[in-house]
Amino acid sequence: MQITSSERDAVYKTIFSRRDVRGQFLSDEIPSEVLTRILTAAHHAPSVGFMQPWDFIVVKNQTTKQKIKTGFEQAHQQSAKMFNDEQAQKYQQFKLEGIIESPVGICVTCDRSRNGPVVIGRTIKPEMDLYSAVCAVQNLWLAARAENLGLGWVSIIHDDVLRAALNIPQDISIIGYLCLGYVSKFKDKPELESAGWLPRREIDDAVHFESWQGNTADSLAKA
Amino acid sequence: MQITSSERDAVYKTIFSRRDVRGQFLSDEIPSEVLTRILTAAHHAPSVGFMQPWDFIVVKNQTTKQKIKTGFEQAHQQSAKMFNDEQAQKYQQFKLEGIIESPVGICVTCDRSRNGPVVIGRTIKPEMDLYSAVCAVQNLWLAARAENLGLGWVSIIHDDVLRAALNIPQDISIIGYLCLGYVSKFKDKPELESAGWLPRREIDDAVHFESWQGNTADSLAKA
Repeated sequence: MQITSSERDAVYKTIFSRRDVRGQFLSDEIPSEVLTRILTAAHHAPSVGFMQPWDFIVVKNQTTKQKIKTGFEQAHQQSAKMFNDEQAQKYQQFKLEGIIESPVGICVTCDRSRNGPVVIGRTIKPEMDLYSAVCAVQNLWLAARAENLGLGWVSIIHDDVLRAALNIPQDISIIGYLCLGYVSKFKDKPELESAGWLPRREIDDAVHFESWQGNTADSLAKA
Repeated sequence: MQITSSERDAVYKTIFSRRDVRGQFLSDEIPSEVLTRILTAAHHAPSVGFMQPWDFIVVKNQTTKQKIKTGFEQAHQQSAKMFNDEQAQKYQQFKLEGIIESPVGICVTCDRSRNGPVVIGRTIKPEMDLYSAVCAVQNLWLAARAENLGLGWVSIIHDDVLRAALNIPQDISIIGYLCLGYVSKFKDKPELESAGWLPRREIDDAVHFESWQGNTADSLAKA
């Protein structure tokens, strides 16, 4: 099946305009057919040995969201103490989640024992199952953007908080908690870039040729 | 920026027709502008604290590829011994990589110490940097598919083999080695599904509501 050049451009448009959304969520409900499409896209991620180790817990309940929000706040205060004084002040000003404002939360998990202990492709690199579940997150994120839905990954929270709030068994690994919803706008750039926290690296610095040391400023243009 | 419904459909077409390619690579060269677009898409993945911890090593050298192929073969034989007799026979019949046939290999790495020890969003969940690099892999995979290029993730290889072949420093984590090239065809389904190794899970089994236990057969339709 061929992808046309206009379809290709649509994929790039989606990839380049995807953002980690925290502050622009609207309360508008997400139609169930839209949510189903997004979750189906996540479920069609690549997985090691076709293991499909992921599960998705959809959260709309306000009491549950409040438990998760409280867990974020505790972890956020704990985290602020890890930065130096100047950084900590800046850190405290960033909005880093939209747990309550977003209409839907999705917790993504990984069942590392699914389909038995020996999995094709995981025999040498045991983390491949976790990485498969992360690929599902990125499919979900891009599908959401294609539906004009914003998504934010909340990583400042202890797994145990999510485990307790969502009754997740001890043997299931937690990948992340995602906030999903329509947005007032998608920002042009990542917020931490606009805020001057860090610049975007030059692509030429990220690409090497033939070995780690094979990296010159104009090398990509010559590839 | 709005995504139109036809652009959305293009994203879904790309997500659903993406495959882990092993056996259908053509030797046709990848134009440098195509490779640049794909790597730029990877570089625009989400990353924790805008850390951008990834690097991409592009491999075309035949001697290097042969070292990697030899490493795969050793790990593949080691892996075959982990399956029971019946599984091992089937396992040996699968083609699980296209290292030599694909014109380009890409090793994706993660520099966990980039931008210092304290990273926004990684304070509680240290694996978030690795997960960011995996998101870059999935961006790369979908961009490749949008360019009608096949990609296969080779996970049956020891990190030390890639480290030696590509001179990757000890403190840089290796995420994966990807084979990239044009293909004779994209298969309709994952090969392990077609071969009867495992079925695709029902999406209803993967989606839960409000808690891990909130999972009924028709729950997604009612969401």
